[in-house]
Amino acid sequence: MKLIDGKKISSEIKEEIAQEVHELLAKGGKKPHLAAILVGNDGGSETYVAHKVKACEQVGFDSTLIRFPDSVSEHELIEKIKEVNQNADIDGLIVQLPIPEHISEEKVIECIDPKKDVDGFHPANVGRMVAGMPAFVSATPNGILELLSRYQIETSGKHCVVIGRSNIVGRPMSILLSQKRTTGNATVTVCHSRTENLKEISKQADIVIAALGKPEFLTADMVKEGAVIIDVGTTRVKSDKTKSGWKLKGDVKFDEVAEKASYITPVPGGVGPMTIVSLLKNTLLAAQKKV
Amino acid sequence: MKLIDGKKISSEIKEEIAQEVHELLAKGGKKPHLAAILVGNDGGSETYVAHKVKACEQVGFDSTLIRFPDSVSEHELIEKIKEVNQNADIDGLIVQLPIPEHISEEKVIECIDPKKDVDGFHPANVGRMVAGMPAFVSATPNGILELLSRYQIETSGKHCVVIGRSNIVGRPMSILLSQKRTTGNATVTVCHSRTENLKEISKQADIVIAALGKPEFLTADMVKEGAVIIDVGTTRVKSDKTKSGWKLKGDVKFDEVAEKASYITPVPGGVGPMTIVSLLKNTLLAAQKKV
Repeated sequence: MKLIDGKKISSEIKEEIAQEVHELLAKGGKKPHLAAILVGNDGGSETYVAHKVKACEQVGFDSTLIRFPDSVSEHELIEKIKEVNQNADIDGLIVQLPIPEHISEEKVIECIDPKKDVDGFHPANVGRMVAGMPAFVSATPNGILELLSRYQIETSGKHCVVIGRSNIVGRPMSILLSQKRTTGNATVTVCHSRTENLKEISKQADIVIAALGKPEFLTADMVKEGAVIIDVGTTRVKSDKTKSGWKLKGDVKFDEVAEKASYITPVPGGVGPMTIVSLLKNTLLAAQKKV
Repeated sequence: MKLIDGKKISSEIKEEIAQEVHELLAKGGKKPHLAAILVGNDGGSETYVAHKVKACEQVGFDSTLIRFPDSVSEHELIEKIKEVNQNADIDGLIVQLPIPEHISEEKVIECIDPKKDVDGFHPANVGRMVAGMPAFVSATPNGILELLSRYQIETSGKHCVVIGRSNIVGRPMSILLSQKRTTGNATVTVCHSRTENLKEISKQADIVIAALGKPEFLTADMVKEGAVIIDVGTTRVKSDKTKSGWKLKGDVKFDEVAEKASYITPVPGGVGPMTIVSLLKNTLLAAQKKV
């Protein structure tokens, strides 16, 4: 079993990005600039956004954090997005999800200029990705492709089973892996809560992407010997062993599945760190006007 | 074995649409209006467009056929599309594909106003469909969903194997069938030219969608007893038995597969007729501003 070290790979990629920024500035270009909008004070969201801002600093990007209270109106939020859309200095814009229920997530996402939509959530980007056109691909699936690629894990002709059909992970992941592309060309099965014979299917997989958000769901009896296991789960569970009072749990029962796997991602330190570097890469692409 | 009669269903749906148009006019509304752009003189394209125009007449739509010679410039074609986008009397616009190689298909499709894109090819529509938002869904997958629904074929929890990953059939079909929706919730596997063990996978399928464009590709040994077989193939093969000198062949070796299938679509008369009614339904939705 080989551990897929997302932390290490993400550090390497950050260095590559920092180098690109260096070259960009040397050529008289400007620093890539990411703006993040955070609504409310959700603990998880605070942490994620803080990580993103810090990562921007690490690679030499400018970043702007725009905060609103929970009570912000949809109108006010959308006006701010429109303002950022118009701001030529800002290359990428993300709105940290979830947002309060009185604001339409769809409206907010569709309001972001697709050219600045570095989260890749805007339908125009999703559609371009599906059609195989240049697009901002959402961060987690993009990060997984990068891990598979850097560990030289063959996907062409392999059977990938994606467990979970969310719009931000499972769905784009299944599409990307089955497309005619490098780190693609896989035979892909999408499983979800309504799947009747999940174990029968997951046992056939050469590569399993577990992205359903149920801690320790995937057990050893559900995978075949030598499978590649990618764990996207990051559920916070209570823990009296950590200072914070919680720890992250993946969707994979790591210890027992690791014994059968050829490659496996840990949680934390697997897919998680890749998500942020994907966002940085998209922001760099946006700054370079490559999408 | 039960034959899925696309011709009959499509006639029924046309009557339903004609009835809706009738009610629309009675309420003082205007006739839905479809514009089709045809470039060049390809025999297949001529026939398809002629069928579409005729279908419009049958249900009481207005239609406009705009023709260009093969030599039309990209600029000229795009200017015409922009003009139609602006024309408030026209509800839906399609550009019959393929178009000559000197014109970018991507540019043409992205130029169509998504609100009039009744073929559902614009990335904004594809992205909205993927996200489960109201969207124009492309005609063939939409027609297949309609057939499954009208024959009350259960998809929830079933294993659907989609053979083919084209942007206009295989890809949207696989996405739609696995979404949380009526005639959805299936476990879906996408197979294609790089799939290594196709037979092994197709034999597991409760529903097979054959959409690869290889005449008589799917044989009896590739399907399980009682499977539902949907044949999307429409390849013209030479024939000395028809006046035209050719006949349509599906992707399924009909006679032998029919013996094992619980339901099967014939070619012609299965999926084909549904494609046109899906286009009509999208045009009606466009006229009613429902997307």
